[in-house]
Amino acid sequence: MATINENFLKLQTGYLFPEISRRIRSFCAKNPDAKIISLGIGDVTGPLVPAVIEAMKKAIVDMGSQTGFHGYGPEQGYDFLINAIIENDFNSRGIDLDRDEVFVSDGAKCDTGNIQEIFGLNNVIAVTDPVYPVYVDTNVMAGRTGQANKNGQYGKIVYMPCTAENNFIPELPSPSVGRVDIIYLCFPNNPTGAVATKEILSKWVDFARKNKAIILFDAAYEAFITDHSIPHSIYEVDGAKEVAIEFRSFSKTAGFTGIRCAFTIVPKQLKAYTEDGRAVEVNPIWHRRHCTKFNGASYISQAGAAAVYTTAGKKQCRQIIDIYLANAAVIRESLTRLGYDVYGGVNAPYIWMKTPDGLSSWGFFDRLLTKANVVGTPGSGFGSAGEGYFRLTAFARPDDVKEAMQRFAAI
Amino acid sequence: MATINENFLKLQTGYLFPEISRRIRSFCAKNPDAKIISLGIGDVTGPLVPAVIEAMKKAIVDMGSQTGFHGYGPEQGYDFLINAIIENDFNSRGIDLDRDEVFVSDGAKCDTGNIQEIFGLNNVIAVTDPVYPVYVDTNVMAGRTGQANKNGQYGKIVYMPCTAENNFIPELPSPSVGRVDIIYLCFPNNPTGAVATKEILSKWVDFARKNKAIILFDAAYEAFITDHSIPHSIYEVDGAKEVAIEFRSFSKTAGFTGIRCAFTIVPKQLKAYTEDGRAVEVNPIWHRRHCTKFNGASYISQAGAAAVYTTAGKKQCRQIIDIYLANAAVIRESLTRLGYDVYGGVNAPYIWMKTPDGLSSWGFFDRLLTKANVVGTPGSGFGSAGEGYFRLTAFARPDDVKEAMQRFAAI
Repeated sequence: MATINENFLKLQTGYLFPEISRRIRSFCAKNPDAKIISLGIGDVTGPLVPAVIEAMKKAIVDMGSQTGFHGYGPEQGYDFLINAIIENDFNSRGIDLDRDEVFVSDGAKCDTGNIQEIFGLNNVIAVTDPVYPVYVDTNVMAGRTGQANKNGQYGKIVYMPCTAENNFIPELPSPSVGRVDIIYLCFPNNPTGAVATKEILSKWVDFARKNKAIILFDAAYEAFITDHSIPHSIYEVDGAKEVAIEFRSFSKTAGFTGIRCAFTIVPKQLKAYTEDGRAVEVNPIWHRRHCTKFNGASYISQAGAAAVYTTAGKKQCRQIIDIYLANAAVIRESLTRLGYDVYGGVNAPYIWMKTPDGLSSWGFFDRLLTKANVVGTPGSGFGSAGEGYFRLTAFARPDDVKEAMQRFAAI
Repeated sequence: MATINENFLKLQTGYLFPEISRRIRSFCAKNPDAKIISLGIGDVTGPLVPAVIEAMKKAIVDMGSQTGFHGYGPEQGYDFLINAIIENDFNSRGIDLDRDEVFVSDGAKCDTGNIQEIFGLNNVIAVTDPVYPVYVDTNVMAGRTGQANKNGQYGKIVYMPCTAENNFIPELPSPSVGRVDIIYLCFPNNPTGAVATKEILSKWVDFARKNKAIILFDAAYEAFITDHSIPHSIYEVDGAKEVAIEFRSFSKTAGFTGIRCAFTIVPKQLKAYTEDGRAVEVNPIWHRRHCTKFNGASYISQAGAAAVYTTAGKKQCRQIIDIYLANAAVIRESLTRLGYDVYGGVNAPYIWMKTPDGLSSWGFFDRLLTKANVVGTPGSGFGSAGEGYFRLTAFARPDDVKEAMQRFAAI
């Protein structure tokens, strides 16, 4: 008798975004003339920049010719891309990396979801609350948690509340919560838009070193950092290579959500332990997982990603990022003027706001959808400490953002 | 203290293909003038057909324009591709499928590796021996096996030997081996090139229904079937939808190894069970896994895949397949004439041969590499019953195949 992985049955109903889609469809069915503006799902609004388009066109010509054809590539990614990543994203910030510490993949969602597979099932996971749901759900699926309680919090996970009171920066787990082995951090943060200074990251690296814990650092939004004092990589902190894995993505940096390319850094210094305390290098274990369950990112996607690092590509991608950051500033300033409590939206594409009038997150979602035909994301969808908050994204066309702000003013 | 998943430490050294690469590199370093012909790794030799190239070029133009840009697509795949798959691969053979029974992905290696995650850790896995290593290794990683013995066979896995004696078709597990819950089958087979008749597949479907077992059916090579009596899909057998998941790929059908696109069928009738015997639909569980740990295949790859189903695409892909099949026939006939025992290579791109002179698989690998500068794959790399066998692939240029056969004649 084939049995199901019963951990899947612990998962709470509906992943956040399908539920949002359902409510929009239902509203539109009744209101077919409504012009919905979405500041909801964090998807870029394109188009891809010319340097990337040209590189991918060339890659396709290659694939149609006998001499330029590429079959299976190296599972870790092509050297032409890995070299560009190391030089531009790391060497430029004083960080050395070996080529085999970089793992090119088809997405940071996949990588942050898959990474837990290489760790033992007894590890205690710590996540911020609110949090990107993939970190939690993939640990539930693997069996690292208990059942969910009525707030949707799973047993055995350590939740670290991030609210206006702590400026959306989690506090170090106090000894009273017990052991913490693997810590997910995301800065610039999805959903709150908070960023972490070098001092904050140093505290976490120290904590991890002291406790032989591992930090899973999601830096998918680093391209939005404009403040020069904010680190783009956790490896800007001394000692971080001993305790941290870093996730990066071309999705938001270069509009690759439909192209699929990302990468993960697993330093060779990083160790995890057997139950009896023997140190094991993590890099070859992730390499084995990556080569066995993945077959490389598309050659065309990798060719496009490499073009992001050319002089033209950098300039063109910067212009797109600047448009999104200008959107973020418009949202932040408009809502502040309207009297809302607004956070994030600086060095980050996400704006996090308190819901007004004591409304719940979904209550405000429904009000905004029905009265303004604007879609955002309920903060409670990211965790119980997100209740009473609401996320808006800067990934939209500037005219739509302005129109959405006018509609906000009218509700 | 962060612990490692110690199941990874059970894995045998070196995935097969890296070891082959290592031996080739070592040989070439000492023999820089050697002209190596590879009939080893099962990779296509390109180029992509014009219909696919044109469709991908158009998709890239889309991605560079505001109106044609595609961000995140549906994780399950675009309807334009799913509809083409259902109509051409299934309806044409009398099989009905709903759109949400098809899951487009970035590779059959990924899908056959990931699928085990949705099943309980106590399931007993059965695999053929020899076998595609990914089925086994991913179950080792998940913890469904014991340690490996000196033959490289892992505890708790049921190995089903496939040798010349049983015509490379596994026998149904006898009651004496105990419970079997999940069965991996691959036809046309990698590595042996064996195919399964409808009668054979019916026996397996009956077995699975009787035992509430699930068949994971890898049909990545179905495009190579030319004999009209051989089923392309396991769903051509009555009742198979209740017990089978099927994996398909564009890698070998259309040369997509560097493009990355595949799909998996999870019928809604398929059930697995909780430990206490309650039936659970598998389709929504895989849907949850797919949407949480994967973010859709590249839009460009999917646009290219859809072109495989156009009139021009079908004709052009057929021509490529026919070239590979002609290669297979040349290898088969040449080696037979030279007195080797040769299997497969009809309805399949793989030729499976007995090693001569009582040589081990790796012994013959080394002889062939050093004396003929031809690379194949040692049968023992696919399992202990593959010892004394050797795999050659038809994925090569016809001139190279002919040259390789001449060199075979000279050793």
